[in-house]
Amino acid sequence: MADDTYYMRQALQEAREAANRGEVPVGAVVVCRDRIIARAHNLTETLTDVTAHAEMQAITAAAGWLGGKYLNNCTLYVTIEPCVMCAGAIAWAQTGRLVYGADDEKRGFQRYAPQALHPKTQVTSGVLADECAQLMKDFFQKRR
Amino acid sequence: MADDTYYMRQALQEAREAANRGEVPVGAVVVCRDRIIARAHNLTETLTDVTAHAEMQAITAAAGWLGGKYLNNCTLYVTIEPCVMCAGAIAWAQTGRLVYGADDEKRGFQRYAPQALHPKTQVTSGVLADECAQLMKDFFQKRR
Repeated sequence: MADDTYYMRQALQEAREAANRGEVPVGAVVVCRDRIIARAHNLTETLTDVTAHAEMQAITAAAGWLGGKYLNNCTLYVTIEPCVMCAGAIAWAQTGRLVYGADDEKRGFQRYAPQALHPKTQVTSGVLADECAQLMKDFFQKRR
Repeated sequence: MADDTYYMRQALQEAREAANRGEVPVGAVVVCRDRIIARAHNLTETLTDVTAHAEMQAITAAAGWLGGKYLNNCTLYVTIEPCVMCAGAIAWAQTGRLVYGADDEKRGFQRYAPQALHPKTQVTSGVLADECAQLMKDFFQKRR
């Protein structure tokens, strides 16, 4: 059985693909019964769409794979703390578990909407946090 | 020049189309320089996707029409107070103005994330609120 670190590495792989495209490097995977059923990375620039965050696309793809809207039995892994929009989507999907890497002190949901998640969603943070944060730092440093 | 009531009637028309499809009746339009550049209604059931709220689709469609991610010069009209997810998207889009009809005391962003919007977004609420709320009441009454 793979562990949180394994799946976060998969999300990190997605984040790196985002960086390669010139997108803010955030990646996500959705896992259901030890199987990755969706993977996505931020595509806001490519799609000219502020809603195209990694988590949003992963939720949409996972629901498509499952044939149902709810992700009660799934875990969403994402490299950076979700924003308010994504936290709202994670709540609507009744996501069973959320695992994220690095905190996002500026845009993370914990600051603006700490009650945004579904009360049943279990949350784990800090998984490979340094690697997740470093990808972001490197990206924004290059753009300066 | 059309006024808020006129555009809210267009959003209500979208909401009625949602109801006709068995979708929770919420409708939205995006207006830019007195022109409707996007219209959408809730499609969460049809698309099996919790992210398919009227506002999300309207924002995506408007950005596609404009060829840019930001809606600074646009007004988003929506029949019901946006949820946390949609408020987050409205913020990312730097939407110039948000006009909504009826409050949503249970799921509206004002309750969970009153700071979620972009500080520059002007907000007007209560436009045709009774009509907007009545559509929702009728819909949920029928489903009981």
